[in-house]
Amino acid sequence: MTATLLEGKPVAEKIEAEVTEEAAGLRAEGVTPNLTVVLVGDDPASKVYVGSKEKACKRVGIDSTTLRLPASLSQGDLLRLIGDLNHNQAVHGILVQLPLPPEIDPNAVLCAVDPAKDVDGFAPENMGKLLLGFPYTVACTPAGIARMLDHYEVPLDGSNVVIIGRSNIVGKPLAALLVQKTKGRNCTVTICHSRTADIARHTRDADIVVAALGSPGFLRADMVRPGCTVVDVGINRVEDPAAKRGYRLVGDADFDTILKKAAFITPVPGGVGPLTVGMLLKNTLKVARCCGCKA
Amino acid sequence: MTATLLEGKPVAEKIEAEVTEEAAGLRAEGVTPNLTVVLVGDDPASKVYVGSKEKACKRVGIDSTTLRLPASLSQGDLLRLIGDLNHNQAVHGILVQLPLPPEIDPNAVLCAVDPAKDVDGFAPENMGKLLLGFPYTVACTPAGIARMLDHYEVPLDGSNVVIIGRSNIVGKPLAALLVQKTKGRNCTVTICHSRTADIARHTRDADIVVAALGSPGFLRADMVRPGCTVVDVGINRVEDPAAKRGYRLVGDADFDTILKKAAFITPVPGGVGPLTVGMLLKNTLKVARCCGCKA
Repeated sequence: MTATLLEGKPVAEKIEAEVTEEAAGLRAEGVTPNLTVVLVGDDPASKVYVGSKEKACKRVGIDSTTLRLPASLSQGDLLRLIGDLNHNQAVHGILVQLPLPPEIDPNAVLCAVDPAKDVDGFAPENMGKLLLGFPYTVACTPAGIARMLDHYEVPLDGSNVVIIGRSNIVGKPLAALLVQKTKGRNCTVTICHSRTADIARHTRDADIVVAALGSPGFLRADMVRPGCTVVDVGINRVEDPAAKRGYRLVGDADFDTILKKAAFITPVPGGVGPLTVGMLLKNTLKVARCCGCKA
Repeated sequence: MTATLLEGKPVAEKIEAEVTEEAAGLRAEGVTPNLTVVLVGDDPASKVYVGSKEKACKRVGIDSTTLRLPASLSQGDLLRLIGDLNHNQAVHGILVQLPLPPEIDPNAVLCAVDPAKDVDGFAPENMGKLLLGFPYTVACTPAGIARMLDHYEVPLDGSNVVIIGRSNIVGKPLAALLVQKTKGRNCTVTICHSRTADIARHTRDADIVVAALGSPGFLRADMVRPGCTVVDVGINRVEDPAAKRGYRLVGDADFDTILKKAAFITPVPGGVGPLTVGMLLKNTLKVARCCGCKA
C-alpha cells in the first residue's frame, strides 16, 4: 500500500481562483478588499511568511500593506497602532504577524484587534464563536486542514480524530472546528499533548491523526493504524549537509514509513502550508464584506 | 469496591463561605455586588433554577434582581433590554436564563451580553478566552466540575478524560478548561457525542468519564474501567409511581452498578448541581470587581 498524497497546491489554486472571482465581484460593488499586516522586528521566518502573504494578495486582487516596525516598539505603541487600524474605516483586515518580540504580550495584542477585522481568527470573540458553533473568521491552518480533507473527500462525519498538540494556532481551534454538530464535521476529537501518558494508544485507534507539535518525525508508522489519514502540520528544519542550504524541511510525521501504511498523508512541504495562506485570503474577503460594505 | 461519593453540598458550602467573605470585603470597599437575572416566559424548571439562584445570592450577600418577562417578548425588545443593562453602570452581572422561547435566537442573545458582565461565561469572547488559556468568567457547570475534582483530590494532570456530550453549556467549555497547559489541568481530552461510532471504546480507556448528554442511565458499568472517576452531569426525570411526585431524578450514569466499579462517582441529585450555582456566585463577584469598581 502506498498512501495518496494530499497535495496542498491544487487546493490552494482552487481557493485562489474562488477568491479572485469574489474579490472582482466586491470591486464591482466599489469595495477593493484590503489587508494590513503588522510586522514587528526582523524574524527571518516571519519576513518570508509576510512576503508570501503579500504575493498571494497581489495574485487574487486584494490590496495589501505591510507596516514594518522595529523590534524596540513598545507594547503600548503597538496597541495604539492597532487601535488606529481598528478605527480606520479604510482598513478591512488586520493581521499581526507572530511571534512578537518577547517584551510584548501576544494575548494582549490578539485581544486588541477588532474581531470584525481579525483575519487570523485569533481574537477571543472569534475563537469563542468557533467553539460555540457559529463561526465568523476561523484560524487559517485549521480551516485549511478541513478544506484539504473535504477536497480529497476524506470522510469526517463520525470519524475518530486525534490531534497531537494543543496550540492556540492549530490544535485547539482545529478541535473546536471538527467536533461541531455540522454535516461534514461531527468528528470524535481527542487532543493529546506533552502531558499525555501514551500518545500511541490514542493515535493507533484514530481514523485521522493530525500532528501539530513541532517535533521532527515524532509520529512513527507503528503509532498509526493501516489505512488511516495523517495530516502533518509540522515544519521543522533538520541539518542536512547534502542540501544546498545545509538543512531540509521535515514534518512531525515520519513520512517515508507512514507512506507505506496510511491511506492519505500530507507531504511537508507542499501539504497544509499553501492552504493556510489560502484561508487567510478567504478571511480577508469575509472581513472586507463585513467592514468594507459598512465603510 | 464501593466508589467514594463526590458530594456537591460540602464543596458548595465552602464556595459560599468564600464568596460571603469576599462579598463582605467588596461591600467594605463600597461596592455591593449585584446580579440581574432575565427570565423570559414561564418554563417551570427555569423558575425553579432562578429561585435557587436568588436564594443563593441572598445567603452570600449579593443583591439580585429578577426581571420576569412574558414569553411573547420579541427578540428585538430583549436585545434592547440587554443593551440597557450593559450600559447601566449600577448593574454588575447579567444572566439570561435559558432556554428562551423558540422565537428567540439564543446565540444572538448570548452575543448581546457585555462580556465584562457575563456571569454565565457563555459570551463568545469569554468562551474564546477560556479556549485560549486566559479565562475571565468560566461557564458554571464546567468550573464546578473542576472545583469538585480539585476538592476531592482526583488527580487531573496527565489524566485521560472522556466527555460524552458536546453542548455549549457543558461539553465544549469543559474540554477547553481541562486541556489547558496549566498545573492541575493538563488532561488528554476526548469529546464523544451522538455521532461517535463506539463511545464505550473511549470510555473504557478513561481515567475520568464525564456524562453530559441527557440520557438516563446511558453510561453503564461495562463501559468504564475499574477505579475510574465518573462525573454525572445529567438530570433526567424518569417516571416512578412509587415516588411522591410520580417521578424521580436520575443521572446519565447507571449509578448502582458503577458505584461498585468506580473509585469516585457524583450522585444525582446532590453532585455537580449545587456547584453550578456556587460558580455563578464566584463569577458574580468577579464581574462586580471588574465592573463595580469602575462604576
